[in-house]
Amino acid sequence: MTSAILKITCQDKKGLIAAVSGFISQHSGNIITLDEFVDRDTNTFFMRVEWDIHDFTIDRENIAPALDKLTAAGGFGGRWELFFADIKPRMAVFVSKFDHCLWDLLLRHRAGELRCDIPIIVSNHEDLRPVADFFGVPYQVVPKTIENKFAAERKEFEILASYKIDFVVMARYMQVLSEDFLSRYENRVINIHHSFLPAFEGAKPYHRAFERGVKIIGATAHFATVNLDKGPIIHQSTLQISHQDTVDDLITKGRDIEKRVLSDGVKLYIANRVFVHGHRTIIL
Amino acid sequence: MTSAILKITCQDKKGLIAAVSGFISQHSGNIITLDEFVDRDTNTFFMRVEWDIHDFTIDRENIAPALDKLTAAGGFGGRWELFFADIKPRMAVFVSKFDHCLWDLLLRHRAGELRCDIPIIVSNHEDLRPVADFFGVPYQVVPKTIENKFAAERKEFEILASYKIDFVVMARYMQVLSEDFLSRYENRVINIHHSFLPAFEGAKPYHRAFERGVKIIGATAHFATVNLDKGPIIHQSTLQISHQDTVDDLITKGRDIEKRVLSDGVKLYIANRVFVHGHRTIIL
Amino acid sequence: MTSAILKITCQDKKGLIAAVSGFISQHSGNIITLDEFVDRDTNTFFMRVEWDIHDFTIDRENIAPALDKLTAAGGFGGRWELFFADIKPRMAVFVSKFDHCLWDLLLRHRAGELRCDIPIIVSNHEDLRPVADFFGVPYQVVPKTIENKFAAERKEFEILASYKIDFVVMARYMQVLSEDFLSRYENRVINIHHSFLPAFEGAKPYHRAFERGVKIIGATAHFATVNLDKGPIIHQSTLQISHQDTVDDLITKGRDIEKRVLSDGVKLYIANRVFVHGHRTIIL
Amino acid sequence: MTSAILKITCQDKKGLIAAVSGFISQHSGNIITLDEFVDRDTNTFFMRVEWDIHDFTIDRENIAPALDKLTAAGGFGGRWELFFADIKPRMAVFVSKFDHCLWDLLLRHRAGELRCDIPIIVSNHEDLRPVADFFGVPYQVVPKTIENKFAAERKEFEILASYKIDFVVMARYMQVLSEDFLSRYENRVINIHHSFLPAFEGAKPYHRAFERGVKIIGATAHFATVNLDKGPIIHQSTLQISHQDTVDDLITKGRDIEKRVLSDGVKLYIANRVFVHGHRTIIL
Repeated sequence: MTSAILKITCQDKKGLIAAVSGFISQHSGNIITLDEFVDRDTNTFFMRVEWDIHDFTIDRENIAPALDKLTAAGGFGGRWELFFADIKPRMAVFVSKFDHCLWDLLLRHRAGELRCDIPIIVSNHEDLRPVADFFGVPYQVVPKTIENKFAAERKEFEILASYKIDFVVMARYMQVLSEDFLSRYENRVINIHHSFLPAFEGAKPYHRAFERGVKIIGATAHFATVNLDKGPIIHQSTLQISHQDTVDDLITKGRDIEKRVLSDGVKLYIANRVFVHGHRTIIL
Repeated sequence: MTSAILKITCQDKKGLIAAVSGFISQHSGNIITLDEFVDRDTNTFFMRVEWDIHDFTIDRENIAPALDKLTAAGGFGGRWELFFADIKPRMAVFVSKFDHCLWDLLLRHRAGELRCDIPIIVSNHEDLRPVADFFGVPYQVVPKTIENKFAAERKEFEILASYKIDFVVMARYMQVLSEDFLSRYENRVINIHHSFLPAFEGAKPYHRAFERGVKIIGATAHFATVNLDKGPIIHQSTLQISHQDTVDDLITKGRDIEKRVLSDGVKLYIANRVFVHGHRTIIL
Repeated sequence: MTSAILKITCQDKKGLIAAVSGFISQHSGNIITLDEFVDRDTNTFFMRVEWDIHDFTIDRENIAPALDKLTAAGGFGGRWELFFADIKPRMAVFVSKFDHCLWDLLLRHRAGELRCDIPIIVSNHEDLRPVADFFGVPYQVVPKTIENKFAAERKEFEILASYKIDFVVMARYMQVLSEDFLSRYENRVINIHHSFLPAFEGAKPYHRAFERGVKIIGATAHFATVNLDKGPIIHQSTLQISHQDTVDDLITKGRDIEKRVLSDGVKLYIANRVFVHGHRTIIL
Repeated sequence: MTSAILKITCQDKKGLIAAVSGFISQHSGNIITLDEFVDRDTNTFFMRVEWDIHDFTIDRENIAPALDKLTAAGGFGGRWELFFADIKPRMAVFVSKFDHCLWDLLLRHRAGELRCDIPIIVSNHEDLRPVADFFGVPYQVVPKTIENKFAAERKEFEILASYKIDFVVMARYMQVLSEDFLSRYENRVINIHHSFLPAFEGAKPYHRAFERGVKIIGATAHFATVNLDKGPIIHQSTLQISHQDTVDDLITKGRDIEKRVLSDGVKLYIANRVFVHGHRTIIL
């Protein structure tokens, strides 16, 4: 079964679902799932619809033009994106020295949980090359210093371009990306922050959590933006801790939740379920 | 804003969403939410759609006939139900001597969390009358013995009829309802069982949980059926326990989870989100 | 079974447990539970020990003097507190207009979950008097304005003194207590804050959580201190939310977690399990 | 810092904690943690005490004889075990074809989370040898058929003996061990069952969970006993599912919880925190 996925964001108005579902059924498509949401504050309509295109009477390459016509005729005036379930998005993983999120992503990928390709792993250190090798994924090192940041990112752009990368996952990559980088990959760079944001933005959240004496720790998967740790949140989770936990215990326990929250966030992104709406995400 | 809610269950086929959403938009209705699910094993389609009827060009009383025509014309061949959000379902609460679930339902109701009416509380004991009195809800006692079960249920039917009851919630009502009762209120009697079913069906689940040495306890909200504790499950949850918990501790901790699971289940039912499909429920 | 509970905080050194448990067994006491913790950073020892005093060869009134001698002889040099399980602490509840935490405390108290007395409820409004009446608890109104704060607190002190109050629970009491008040009841005023601190300190946390687009909300039970929402945390918990939740939904869902976190925090306090250590709590 | 860990199980009586903690302090040991529990139903006392032996005045090899004397003199009449924190227990992992629990154990081991040695992995299939190779752990295949079970286990005993194995972890090893095997390694074989026991004992729990329409799935780490899936439970956890989850989704989501529950159970065992008491475990 091959399916198409349409994501629409536009001003809310009557008849949007009817127009789209009518279009699909008129051309013999069978809807698999349809999810929508209306943000009442801004009167914005969000929809994700996936349909079986086995018998669809419009060829793949003609669906986008047909949608152009449909949305123009319907006065939708927003924006839409079209995906095909059998074309996997291409994910680059950026890592530094921590390996737990990388292992988690690669093992889930191999188990068939992540429907994407992982053509390249980029790091500022050699350390995790053996992990990449085990899975047969190319691994490129782009060292980073304060001085070479501009040149290093240019090198990274080349890598991303040469591997036709669609989105980037920062799997505990401890570097800040530039405004230039983030604007090129707007809402396409997913970061994992090791706290329940907005608490403990910035460095050493576990140390600060310990100092504050909190009884929970957490992790947050979010889109990276120029304002560090302030990007739209995709997924978050927490777990209980106690006074018995040292900072090292928090770091150890935190690994577990970091990797799960990141993988869950990546899964939602890959399934084309994540819409960015201002500071917030809509997950359909 | 007043809205209509349509629940449809039928054989899956192309064009169902288009037909219904087209019908709504053609008559100037604005869809608020639309959720659907297809059970692939049985090829069954489930949909819940809610639309604003403020400008709807069909009068309330004519919507059902129009839907009859629509589904007949479309060959939907299933069944559908129509609700209006401003017409609250009427819930009877059956209780015995435990009060925690009753308090929880009545407090949530007063806080506006449960969009239903609670015109009557039925019990086989006098004990909880003061609770009912506090909230100004009529309270009728129908004593039950093994001998009088038939007569007692006839009395209960009269009460339910006189209060025009739509559905019954057994809030730790420790009596088994007859096949006759359950067939009259099929999929309209919600029970809370104090274990994570299918474990510990039947009596004294906390005692048996303690004996078995489990490390979690739970609760299950389900439709009551003739096969005790085997009805379709609406909602379940668990919490961690330890060797330090005595049976009494389990009972105390269990109260917390019982009342939450029951109230959550009732909320889903009231929102017309629960579809029964064989042994299972679909929650849209 | 009647038991004594000893809480000790002192510099860590060898032989502390032996000295205390030896003292208990020499006088025919049977230890029911013993919990201890050493904070390595500050080399501080914390212990809570509870023992059956049925056959204890020291009379109740002589246990404290005996402990004075024991700790002096042992050079413990810290501080200790002695409690008897059959002497319930006396809790005052401060409320404003929100009733959910008050209901929760009173219902759990009546169910035997909270081993304390609740001789008085204090409020700045009349609104919740019917709740107090239902449970037969005295309810006193002390109105508060910016101008009368000093006089109002003097009135509150009189109430607390006349009812011999041991500790105060702010059950969504929306007023800030003065430094004078808090120093008189140091580490004896428990507040519930409706966010997972340190996120969203201060006013309107649910509105700000909504704005930020977080995917979890939470609640924090902590000791009230002059630095608002910065007191030592006793207990915290979170729950998942989604883009579908409006601010009102967050407030509704938050009530559930607020009342549970507060009651759990109060239970720990009542059981004499909470030690304050700088900004942090040790829960034994 | 090197420490000794003593586990005691005996009839409860006065003075047990004083006797043991006195013994430790008399010989200049400093207690790091002491946890105890009394099962009131059977009047059984359980204690785990860990103390720093840096300055302990009894040599390592003489501690056990000294404890023999102590318990004989004190009339403890139960049994005790002594461990040293720097002597890691030796764990054999038994696997079949599923790799997720094995990966999880080996990655946590390498990250320093599991304080044990893993000298050997045993399997009835070749499939997971590459995983073992990556971590440099010997991997031996012992094929199993209905006919060769007796001979196969004899081979396994040889392997376990030659690697001086202390305990066995069945990491989704899909074979039933014989009564002979289990009696040799009584309470030293940890299994992970992919359901929240006692629900769905036996084969294909996810299929049966799907059929029953439950709203949660879970996993249980327990000691393997002759009565399949009835052994003492060490740890359990659950997660929420919905009608949207197919059996394959349950299997995928279940992997996550299986591996966490197993690793958590193994951690408790390795830390010498697990006491078996009839059908139940005490976790100190």
